[in-house]
Amino acid sequence: MDTRQTATRFEVVFDVEGRNTAKFRNEITVHKRLLHPVSVDLPTDEGPGHGGGGTAPYPLAYFAAGLTACVMTQLRAFSRRLGIAVGEFSVNTRCHWEASQIGNAPYESAPIAFTMDIDLGGDAPEADQRRLIAAAEKGCFVEQSLKPGIVKHRLKVADRWVEL
Amino acid sequence: MDTRQTATRFEVVFDVEGRNTAKFRNEITVHKRLLHPVSVDLPTDEGPGHGGGGTAPYPLAYFAAGLTACVMTQLRAFSRRLGIAVGEFSVNTRCHWEASQIGNAPYESAPIAFTMDIDLGGDAPEADQRRLIAAAEKGCFVEQSLKPGIVKHRLKVADRWVEL
Repeated sequence: MDTRQTATRFEVVFDVEGRNTAKFRNEITVHKRLLHPVSVDLPTDEGPGHGGGGTAPYPLAYFAAGLTACVMTQLRAFSRRLGIAVGEFSVNTRCHWEASQIGNAPYESAPIAFTMDIDLGGDAPEADQRRLIAAAEKGCFVEQSLKPGIVKHRLKVADRWVEL
Repeated sequence: MDTRQTATRFEVVFDVEGRNTAKFRNEITVHKRLLHPVSVDLPTDEGPGHGGGGTAPYPLAYFAAGLTACVMTQLRAFSRRLGIAVGEFSVNTRCHWEASQIGNAPYESAPIAFTMDIDLGGDAPEADQRRLIAAAEKGCFVEQSLKPGIVKHRLKVADRWVEL
């Protein structure tokens, strides 16, 4: 049996404990479960301009960081698995939403687009870079949880940004 | 004209700068744009068990915190707008994914479920609590960006957890 072709499956679980006492600050603790468990405190707050105390990052700052870093982590990991060299690389993401409301009723929100500009550095051929990004998209736990079509990827090729 | 019924619309933008030099650590800076701009550094790393240095939270820890805190923030904000009192409240979320791979090829990932257990405290009627949670779901920028059906909500009613 060729073990290189063995199909394997694994699970990933993160548990969150969130507590809110009165204002917009949330006490948040995240527990990574299963392999190599670890916990971290990640409180959030709204800024003073939005009625909060500005004591911690906005929830959406964590979301935007998590999305971007998840793709970056897959790019780094899969560049090894696929043998596609990357240098120092950058991923710049714009997360863009809109919301609408009637009077002072609760608003309803919707994503417009999450645009991810990827500059892999190095000198791998464009086709290999595209193959690496396609693999990273399929492996990224966050991107695979999002509504299809929201995330747009652009790759830097020479001095141009190419839509993927 | 009754200004209470005026329809308004607003946009929310967060820009992310991500840099990776060699290992699994990502230098991440998030910029809130438009109203009340502010920036925050949110680096990530994998743990030592996963080939990283454990120097910062996992990307998925940020994602899980952001999702939970976004819903919590809407619960707090909309409890005021709807006049539905909440006490100290808690939201406990399990983010559960799976991934599969052939040999050492890049894996492909998929969400199984994000289960959110909400205990609003206070003594508002169950119907009002349900109405508040429904509004928070529609207002939550993260939840509205996710594939439909992934997030399951449960509400604590007396000593039971009720599926919503």
